[in-house]
Amino acid sequence: MKKIVVLGSTGSIGTQTLDVVRNNSDMEVVALAAGSNIKLLEEQIREFRPRMVCVFDEKKAKELRILVSDCDVTITSGMEGLIECSVTPEADVVLTAIVGMIGIQPTIAAIKAKKDIALANKETLVTAGHIIMPLAGEYNVKILPVDSEHSAIFQALNGENYNRISRILLTASGGPFRGMTTKQLEKVGLEDALKHPNWSMGRKITIDSATMVNKGLEVIEAKWLFGVEFNQIEVVVQPKSIIHSMVEFVDGGVIAQLGTPDMKLPIQYALTYPDRRGLGGERLDFTTLSSISFEAPDLDTFRGLSLAYEVGKMGGSMPTVFNAANERAVAKFLNREISFLEIYEIIEDAIQWHRKVDNPSVDAILEIEAQTYERIESRFHV
Amino acid sequence: MKKIVVLGSTGSIGTQTLDVVRNNSDMEVVALAAGSNIKLLEEQIREFRPRMVCVFDEKKAKELRILVSDCDVTITSGMEGLIECSVTPEADVVLTAIVGMIGIQPTIAAIKAKKDIALANKETLVTAGHIIMPLAGEYNVKILPVDSEHSAIFQALNGENYNRISRILLTASGGPFRGMTTKQLEKVGLEDALKHPNWSMGRKITIDSATMVNKGLEVIEAKWLFGVEFNQIEVVVQPKSIIHSMVEFVDGGVIAQLGTPDMKLPIQYALTYPDRRGLGGERLDFTTLSSISFEAPDLDTFRGLSLAYEVGKMGGSMPTVFNAANERAVAKFLNREISFLEIYEIIEDAIQWHRKVDNPSVDAILEIEAQTYERIESRFHV
Repeated sequence: MKKIVVLGSTGSIGTQTLDVVRNNSDMEVVALAAGSNIKLLEEQIREFRPRMVCVFDEKKAKELRILVSDCDVTITSGMEGLIECSVTPEADVVLTAIVGMIGIQPTIAAIKAKKDIALANKETLVTAGHIIMPLAGEYNVKILPVDSEHSAIFQALNGENYNRISRILLTASGGPFRGMTTKQLEKVGLEDALKHPNWSMGRKITIDSATMVNKGLEVIEAKWLFGVEFNQIEVVVQPKSIIHSMVEFVDGGVIAQLGTPDMKLPIQYALTYPDRRGLGGERLDFTTLSSISFEAPDLDTFRGLSLAYEVGKMGGSMPTVFNAANERAVAKFLNREISFLEIYEIIEDAIQWHRKVDNPSVDAILEIEAQTYERIESRFHV
Repeated sequence: MKKIVVLGSTGSIGTQTLDVVRNNSDMEVVALAAGSNIKLLEEQIREFRPRMVCVFDEKKAKELRILVSDCDVTITSGMEGLIECSVTPEADVVLTAIVGMIGIQPTIAAIKAKKDIALANKETLVTAGHIIMPLAGEYNVKILPVDSEHSAIFQALNGENYNRISRILLTASGGPFRGMTTKQLEKVGLEDALKHPNWSMGRKITIDSATMVNKGLEVIEAKWLFGVEFNQIEVVVQPKSIIHSMVEFVDGGVIAQLGTPDMKLPIQYALTYPDRRGLGGERLDFTTLSSISFEAPDLDTFRGLSLAYEVGKMGGSMPTVFNAANERAVAKFLNREISFLEIYEIIEDAIQWHRKVDNPSVDAILEIEAQTYERIESRFHV
C-alpha cells in the first residue's frame, strides 16, 4: 500500500492526484492540505479518510473542524499544520501541489522525515534548489517530478546514465500569443491570456504560459532536477504539446516522451515509478495526428524565458526575485491593474533593484520574497 | 576491453561496426567473417589484427591465406569456419551482420558459447525466433538489436518493464514509392527502387524498403525481440525517418527514439549498452527540422507489409517461406528478370504453395528455404 500526503489537494493537480488514488486500490491518502476550500476538503475527507488535514487559513480550519466533527481526522492549520502533514509517520511520499514558496518548508521537513517527494510545486526548486537537491541526496530521498515536461525528461532518462546527457530539449507550446510581436502584445487583454491552446490549468500558470515565464521557471527547475548546466537546456516550441520533452545524449540519440495532454499520467508515474500502471484516457493516434511541428522560441518578444535564463545563470537569490516579482505582477494582471507587457517590466525592475545573495537560506529566500513584494507595491503606491 | 566478433565485416553494417571499434579504444576485434571480398578483408586484418577470420568461399579463403601469410591469423572457411569464429573463446559479443538464413547457425553456436549477440541479421529471428529467443533465455545471453528501428524500441524500453508495453509503433519511411498506386508501380524500374529517401544501405535491403517487405520482416523481428503479439505492433509512416520508432505503454505514455540516420549510433549502443558513448556526427536540430509528419501505411498497395503480418500470425515455417521467396524474387528483380510487382506475386505464390510446419527445427528451416527456392525456379523454367 502506497501511503500518500497531498499538499494542495483542492487545486487542479491535487484533485487529479486524488483521481489517480481512486483508480489504484493500493494507494491510500494519509494526509491532505489545502488553502481554504473547506467545502471540497470536507468531501475529500469523507471519501479518502485521511488521518490528518491542514487548512492553511486558521479561521477556515475551525469551520472545517465543526463540519467533519463526526470523522476520525485531526484538522491543523498554518505552516505548522502543513509541516505536520508532511511528516505523517506512515506516509511514503508527499505530493507537493501547493503554489508558491510556501512549499519550501514542508518539502524540507518531508525530506528530513525520509519521504519521497512528488514535486508539483515549481517554486521549491526554482528558489531553493541549492538546498533541496543536496538534502534529498543526503537523506536518500527521491525527487519525482510531476510537471508534464519534467516527468517527460525523467521518463526519457529512465535507465540512462545522467552523465551521458548532452542536451535537455524542453518543449513549449508557445502559449496563446505565439507568433505575436511586442506591438501586438501591447493590446492583449486578460481573456486572451487565459486561453491556453492545449492544457487546462489554473489561472496563474496559464498567464505564466502566455508570458513564457512558466517555461523559464521550468528551465531553472530542470537544471536542479537533472543536474545539468543552463547551456544544456534548450527550449523548443512544439505548438501542439504532443512531445512533452526530450533528452539528447552524448551519442546524438534523442529520447522523447509523447502523450495526450493529461496530467494524470505524470502524477501516476511519480507515484508508481519505476513501474507504470494502466490508465484510461485518450491515446495518441499518429495517423490522425498527421504532423508535429517545431520552431525556435521568440526570446526577444517573450522575455519571460530569456529573463529566466539570465537569473538562473546568476544564481543565488536572483531566481527568488524573478519568481516573486512575477507572482505579484501576474496577480496584478489578473486583477486588471496592469497590462500584459507590464508583467515583464515589473520583473525587470525587481531584478535590477535586487542585490544578489549567494546561497540564500530558506529564511533569506522568504525574506527576499517579502522584500520583492514590498518593492513592487512601493512602485504602485507613490 | 570489449572483445568483438564481426560476422559480415565487409558489408555496410560490418564496416560501420569497425568504424565504431576504431573510435573506442576499449573495443577489440577478435574475429571477422565475410563472404568473398578478400581485398577489404586483408585491409581489415592488417588494421584490426583479429586472431581468426572466415571467408565463406573456400577458394577465396585460400587466396586470402596467401595474401596475409605474414600475419598471425587463422583463415577458416564455410559454415564450419563461421561457427568457429562465433565461438572464439575470448569474445564477449558477436555482431551478426551477414545477410540471409546463413546467420542462424553461427548465432545459435554463439549463444551456446554464452556470447551476447548484437543482431543485425533479420532472417535469424524472422525464421528461427522460436528457437533463438528461448535459447538466449536459457543461456542468459543478451540479444541486442542493431537495426535502427529495433534499437530505437530497445532504447525506448530501457529501464521499463516489458509487461507494460501497450503498442510498439514501428516507424517506416514508406520508401521511394510512397503514395504511388498499384497502377503506377507497374512502371517502376530498378533504378527508381534503388533510390531510398533517407538511408544509404545495401541493394537488397533498399528494394525491401521499396516493397515494404523490409518493414514486414522488422515487424516479425520485433515480435520476437520484445515478446509482444502482432496486434501490438503498428507501423506508422514517418517519411523523414527522424523518429526511429516508439513504444506506447499501458498508461498511454509514448517513449520515442529520434536521431539522424546514422547506423553508427545503434551499432555503438548495442556494444556499450546499457551505457552510451560520445559519437561524432550530425545532431538533430529541431528548429531547422520544422516538422515531423505521419501517415498510415498503404497496406493494399505495398503488400509486403500485409503479407508479413499474415505469415507472422500463421507462424511456424511461414515466415521462412515469405523470407526465402522474397530473397529470390528480389535477386531476380535486381537481375532485371522480373518487374517490381512480380516480387509480390512470387511471394504470394510461395505462401499459397507451402504447407505450414509448426515449430520447425533449424534443419527444417533450411530445407524449407531450399524447397522455396526450387519452387520459384520451377515456375521460371517450365
